[in-house]
Amino acid sequence: MSELSHVDASGAARMVDVSGKQPGARVAVATGVLRTTAEVLDLLRSDGLPKGDALATARIAGIMGAKRTPDLVPLCHPIALTGVKVELDPGVDEVRITATVKTTDRTGVEMEALTAVTVAGLTLHDMVKAVDPAAVLDAVRVERKEGGKTGTWTRPEDR
Amino acid sequence: MSELSHVDASGAARMVDVSGKQPGARVAVATGVLRTTAEVLDLLRSDGLPKGDALATARIAGIMGAKRTPDLVPLCHPIALTGVKVELDPGVDEVRITATVKTTDRTGVEMEALTAVTVAGLTLHDMVKAVDPAAVLDAVRVERKEGGKTGTWTRPEDR
Amino acid sequence: MSELSHVDASGAARMVDVSGKQPGARVAVATGVLRTTAEVLDLLRSDGLPKGDALATARIAGIMGAKRTPDLVPLCHPIALTGVKVELDPGVDEVRITATVKTTDRTGVEMEALTAVTVAGLTLHDMVKAVDPAAVLDAVRVERKEGGKTGTWTRPEDR
Amino acid sequence: MSELSHVDASGAARMVDVSGKQPGARVAVATGVLRTTAEVLDLLRSDGLPKGDALATARIAGIMGAKRTPDLVPLCHPIALTGVKVELDPGVDEVRITATVKTTDRTGVEMEALTAVTVAGLTLHDMVKAVDPAAVLDAVRVERKEGGKTGTWTRPEDR
Amino acid sequence: MSELSHVDASGAARMVDVSGKQPGARVAVATGVLRTTAEVLDLLRSDGLPKGDALATARIAGIMGAKRTPDLVPLCHPIALTGVKVELDPGVDEVRITATVKTTDRTGVEMEALTAVTVAGLTLHDMVKAVDPAAVLDAVRVERKEGGKTGTWTRPEDR
Amino acid sequence: MSELSHVDASGAARMVDVSGKQPGARVAVATGVLRTTAEVLDLLRSDGLPKGDALATARIAGIMGAKRTPDLVPLCHPIALTGVKVELDPGVDEVRITATVKTTDRTGVEMEALTAVTVAGLTLHDMVKAVDPAAVLDAVRVERKEGGKTGTWTRPEDR
Repeated sequence: MSELSHVDASGAARMVDVSGKQPGARVAVATGVLRTTAEVLDLLRSDGLPKGDALATARIAGIMGAKRTPDLVPLCHPIALTGVKVELDPGVDEVRITATVKTTDRTGVEMEALTAVTVAGLTLHDMVKAVDPAAVLDAVRVERKEGGKTGTWTRPEDR
Repeated sequence: MSELSHVDASGAARMVDVSGKQPGARVAVATGVLRTTAEVLDLLRSDGLPKGDALATARIAGIMGAKRTPDLVPLCHPIALTGVKVELDPGVDEVRITATVKTTDRTGVEMEALTAVTVAGLTLHDMVKAVDPAAVLDAVRVERKEGGKTGTWTRPEDR
Repeated sequence: MSELSHVDASGAARMVDVSGKQPGARVAVATGVLRTTAEVLDLLRSDGLPKGDALATARIAGIMGAKRTPDLVPLCHPIALTGVKVELDPGVDEVRITATVKTTDRTGVEMEALTAVTVAGLTLHDMVKAVDPAAVLDAVRVERKEGGKTGTWTRPEDR
Repeated sequence: MSELSHVDASGAARMVDVSGKQPGARVAVATGVLRTTAEVLDLLRSDGLPKGDALATARIAGIMGAKRTPDLVPLCHPIALTGVKVELDPGVDEVRITATVKTTDRTGVEMEALTAVTVAGLTLHDMVKAVDPAAVLDAVRVERKEGGKTGTWTRPEDR
Repeated sequence: MSELSHVDASGAARMVDVSGKQPGARVAVATGVLRTTAEVLDLLRSDGLPKGDALATARIAGIMGAKRTPDLVPLCHPIALTGVKVELDPGVDEVRITATVKTTDRTGVEMEALTAVTVAGLTLHDMVKAVDPAAVLDAVRVERKEGGKTGTWTRPEDR
Repeated sequence: MSELSHVDASGAARMVDVSGKQPGARVAVATGVLRTTAEVLDLLRSDGLPKGDALATARIAGIMGAKRTPDLVPLCHPIALTGVKVELDPGVDEVRITATVKTTDRTGVEMEALTAVTVAGLTLHDMVKAVDPAAVLDAVRVERKEGGKTGTWTRPEDR
């Protein structure tokens, strides 16, 4: 059976040694969804007029959040990110969030993509909470990753 | 109809002026759940032995995450937190996360509680991803808040 | 003659003791201008279409920058900000930047307003540098401050 | 006509993908000037005695500021800096600031040099503001950059 | 027998709830010493000439470090600091470090004073390590604290 | 006689240019000790029961602290860390701290190892201070470093 690589044999947390890994192009895509109400979506869309910053604020927060990953997640390696994209897709009563993160470094960037999604989601939460305090950030997960020794992984349909 | 207070009439983002609000005791409770597999839960529980740091790492990351909220969420006010608690409740194939945050300042601490939950959730994600890359952080939401002008709010059952 | 309060009699830097100051409402307004070309202004304005994030990115960076002031300016006190607004006014070949910062704490917020202006300006610089590497951030200065023992100060016309 | 590479076709902000760029030695030099009064310059110079920390504080703040660039400027890539120098040249009623930043990474370091200049300038602002609240940070601009695909760029005389 | 207040009855880490504590003036003084060689002290003193930044760099790093305490020490409350002073006293083959930190907030500032001392000490370590890699940071401890419910505490002579 | 490389000929602080250095595997090991009382050690050990987070909190703080080194130590280069381990060894009345840090970058990682030790030590300080305000962090020093042009260095026995 597998083991949690982030703790050693005695159970102590550690940042795993990746010195022996090869640098190389890696990509990770993560998604999530902020579920709220149709009324809130109308408000967010109205802000979609010229100069409306609501969605931009969440996009930018997500991009900046990706860069803060090693500050937030204790055992994550600090790595160079070569590209970050955060897409917001407003629906009827929800906003779908997709983050794509790239690196040419020694570890995968799933955590950076997940962090971008959650920080964008938290920022949407913050903006809508006065109108809908019951909003929910749901389904934050990795969809795909490419590169590294394990190669491409795509989320199985049954999860 | 309500409006998004985080953008002004022209649609520009702003940090809302709360100078006129009264300082006072406020509490927020947020929850979320990391859904993974029973195998992973067994691993996390085995780390629950003396010195097993897996859950502790997530708890501490959540507490530290609460303090980073204004760095992450662009329009959040930087406020003094007077208490943060992050509880992890491992189930059969999931870990439930509950964060309770307190302040005596001028704004509510829902965002700090939500940030604590998501950072704890991301940290769990990070630790289990080698074994279960398909784990999902779900249902990140505010359960209750107390204090401030609006008083106590409890999540309605139908949301 | 006055002295620099940030260094003691021996010349050593210090964070001045403000324990004896009274908390109270304070405001500071700072401005600056990014000088670039008419071509760049056209590009920035085109981004002013729905979803165009260029100016929003600078506004949000400025707001977040205000919160980072004590991390950047060594002798600044960490204080609670109760409101931050960053306004961008695109002209023919320049963007004027105005930041308004409020607090109810023990020190003035001129540095926070100036930091908001410069970070917004740096962010504009970053976005236009591929098209106009010769852009200049100019005239970063305090226009007005209110509150505190010294009361209201307005920039003299001859400076 | 050129386009702003920091926003995509839909106008959404993104951190541009530089995965395909070659790492290599790059240098950027930026300058700025804090304009204040002759009286303030006398004070800063007196602090130039043994242990006088005023200019040192600004130099160090500038160096540390360069390292915070990706935290401040939303769409900047986090990159490894291999050298940072901040020079302060006090004149009659102004302090000229020059920052030189080096990297061996995939992007230029103009933003890091500009950030070093502005943070050093803000720190001078902070130290002199009690004596001269009307000080101005002016002419923050790139003077020269070397390396990368575009090679050496020197500021044209007419800008 | 006393208990560790930073963990609850189940052993889980938490940021202790201080909502019920009274704000008030508090001071803490901490000290430490960097032990190195007489040769290094000569170098540090030579840098004590006009513009010599070695000791200033450590002083400023210590002051900035005090402000980063809640980012570094997981269970520390983020509080407003109203004054920070870091004194360096070079001896024959060592530099003594003293930090004094003040607040008017709800918790003591011993950790902020200790953090200022250690960050100043680390910075000295950094500057001397090329010449003396064997330097040691020793005796980092609280000397005195004032204010709060427990009042004044002075370090007992036998510790 | 050697010179302090962190200041230039005029005494001004700088981040030394390491552009010409070769990337390569480097390791540094640093140690320190928190001296407290036997009573405190009993408390820390009792927390060593399932879910007892006291030592885990310090381990994790140390790992995260290593990543913050360039934010804290002004003239340190920001570099990629490829592995961090913090070991705590509780004795009769003290806790020994050992940090091992690895990189494949252009500079050594002694400062990162020392920072991990001190942040772990500060965190222990924080947790025991209510019971033993007189605790002391002692003997923070580099034990060994490997890699780079200077190769392996081991602490001499007489220091």
